[in-house]
Amino acid sequence: MAKANPLGAARYPLAPDLPANLETPAVLVDRDILEANIDRMQALADGAGLALRPHVKTHKSVVIARTQLAAGASGLTASKVEEALVFITAGIQSLTLAYPLVSAAKLDRLLDAARRRGCDLRLIVDQMAGVDLLAARAAAQGCRPGVFIKIDVGLHRCGREPGDPQVADLAGALRHAASLEFRGLLSHAGHAYGAADGEAAARIAEEERLSMTALADRLRRAGFRVPEVSVGSTPTVLAARGFDGLTEIRPGNYVFMDQTPLRLGLVPPSRVALSVLTTVVSTNDRYAIVDAGSKTLSSDRGAHGADGLAGFGRAFALGGVSGRETPLIVEKLSEEHGFVGLEGRRLEPGDRLQIFPNHACPVVNLTRRFYLYSGAATEGQTVDAAACVR
Amino acid sequence: MAKANPLGAARYPLAPDLPANLETPAVLVDRDILEANIDRMQALADGAGLALRPHVKTHKSVVIARTQLAAGASGLTASKVEEALVFITAGIQSLTLAYPLVSAAKLDRLLDAARRRGCDLRLIVDQMAGVDLLAARAAAQGCRPGVFIKIDVGLHRCGREPGDPQVADLAGALRHAASLEFRGLLSHAGHAYGAADGEAAARIAEEERLSMTALADRLRRAGFRVPEVSVGSTPTVLAARGFDGLTEIRPGNYVFMDQTPLRLGLVPPSRVALSVLTTVVSTNDRYAIVDAGSKTLSSDRGAHGADGLAGFGRAFALGGVSGRETPLIVEKLSEEHGFVGLEGRRLEPGDRLQIFPNHACPVVNLTRRFYLYSGAATEGQTVDAAACVR
Repeated sequence: MAKANPLGAARYPLAPDLPANLETPAVLVDRDILEANIDRMQALADGAGLALRPHVKTHKSVVIARTQLAAGASGLTASKVEEALVFITAGIQSLTLAYPLVSAAKLDRLLDAARRRGCDLRLIVDQMAGVDLLAARAAAQGCRPGVFIKIDVGLHRCGREPGDPQVADLAGALRHAASLEFRGLLSHAGHAYGAADGEAAARIAEEERLSMTALADRLRRAGFRVPEVSVGSTPTVLAARGFDGLTEIRPGNYVFMDQTPLRLGLVPPSRVALSVLTTVVSTNDRYAIVDAGSKTLSSDRGAHGADGLAGFGRAFALGGVSGRETPLIVEKLSEEHGFVGLEGRRLEPGDRLQIFPNHACPVVNLTRRFYLYSGAATEGQTVDAAACVR
Repeated sequence: MAKANPLGAARYPLAPDLPANLETPAVLVDRDILEANIDRMQALADGAGLALRPHVKTHKSVVIARTQLAAGASGLTASKVEEALVFITAGIQSLTLAYPLVSAAKLDRLLDAARRRGCDLRLIVDQMAGVDLLAARAAAQGCRPGVFIKIDVGLHRCGREPGDPQVADLAGALRHAASLEFRGLLSHAGHAYGAADGEAAARIAEEERLSMTALADRLRRAGFRVPEVSVGSTPTVLAARGFDGLTEIRPGNYVFMDQTPLRLGLVPPSRVALSVLTTVVSTNDRYAIVDAGSKTLSSDRGAHGADGLAGFGRAFALGGVSGRETPLIVEKLSEEHGFVGLEGRRLEPGDRLQIFPNHACPVVNLTRRFYLYSGAATEGQTVDAAACVR
């Protein structure tokens, strides 16, 4: 699996030789780049002495999860119960549900599946009612999941702020609950997706590390065991200057990469594994109209509401191009149509375009399968995305 | 079925009494409003002497399509082959695929299914290669689909401009092709979704009517039979001052309605049938975080790239509200989290919110099922969205 990335750094990895009968729109995954991305992230984690628990919301694929685990990942992270159940049922032995559960029914399903399958389940809380719910349901099912306190390091989504005295109260309640095992602190610096550049993303990563490690130390001084300090997002992990005091990273997007790590200068285009093959269905004087719209590419400009990206994807007409050219921009989307700005170039109906979307995660969520192929190879394999977790 | 809409005009139709065990996020459809919307559109079409062929991309539901047909619709319209096949297989007897096909494989599947099921299939073309493809495949399969020439009335997506001399060439080629039946002209004024107000949408509708009827007359003077002139989008149909010279409308969104017809002042909030039930999973000083993000609500601001709407939906905390209050705004989305601006109000984890999304169509596309309920009733029925057409 440890292949060198075969592609030049500044070049988008085009796939001009895909089978002519591959119907479009098709979500493409370049297996060589995927595996290189997985290996590099694992090497980064290993080098820093960190556990890697990749987030599966990006790929929703048991096949890719198994590749991550074979490369050395310690377990997986998921964002919703239905998603987690797919991987637990597939036999994954350690999974973090990084989402605060407030529904006893959902929690029961999850605890039950994890218990039956022997999966080490790890949950998060950010308020006392969450501790009470988890403790009660775990006790009822006779299991003892690990629990993290979710810390808000700046996205202002879920979590307690690092200075909030409630953190110690939650830690105390978790220590007290016989049916729960307090594992430590967990954060997600999703605001890094909106950072102005890689330097700004690095600052966000360092702020997250400092506040998380300081908080862990404060709890330890107060007598708590804090075995784990888990952080992670692809931009912060790639930009970070160091990981001292942290124990785990949970990036997701890195398997595919997309326009956010590119915009931040954290990776070259050659490391983007996911793209969408489309066909021109009509043209006019301004646009080539392709058969991939918002129901294929999603309307995401970036992630977490970040919108620093122009358009909805970068497009290359296949044939006679190297991937080093300036891409065309998918300027506008209808549901089943993409408007690719022609900028004076000429395209004809039937021409195929390879589009590198802004945000890979919702693209996978919108498809039931993707086409996994190897670099220059003309043949690939259709893989189910467990997307079927809606 | 012809019920009066039971709700006050300026009131969002809230459903505070839904079962407590209905898991969230759940896509809700108010059956009374749905049926009233279907009946009103049919009455509008009947009153103007127009055929109504509703676009199914909005609901992707055979159950709702049958309600539309029972109310008097002449057939259905679909936007992709996989979508069309669901309805043809379900026995629908007349279907327009309002998308230019360039793939022989997809076309063959569609023609074959229509032939086997006895479905009157209607297709569109906007270039000579399309005519050649359709003629060849229809001849090979021994069938004779109806074909429309797609006219671009201002969206600058697919179609020939009304003044383009190629329109007559296409009409000639269609008349000449023994395996095709030239049915007329078809347009979609999708740019009306971005209109400044209802008056502007009405102007777009009138421009579309004038250019389509003038073009039809020009073809007739040149000796062509032009039996049908088909237009349609929910905003233009609702805003239009008249339909003289047109024969068919193809709105889709009207079954549910969403923030675009509301923004344009074309319907009151009481006519919005689709919403999303969510649960607050966390709160902070600015936001209530709910369990519906871009993977439930979609990141669409509007349709066709229109972005005149604030946020990603209008939210009401259920309990003690009438629907006349100023809604909270879903200001930002992560994939599985919505950030609802609190504006000083207080919400707790576990509280339920009913969100009226910006754009209903992609919400249905993102779910496998929706919950169909009747007005004040506390019980409903889970209905499959044929969303499973990805």
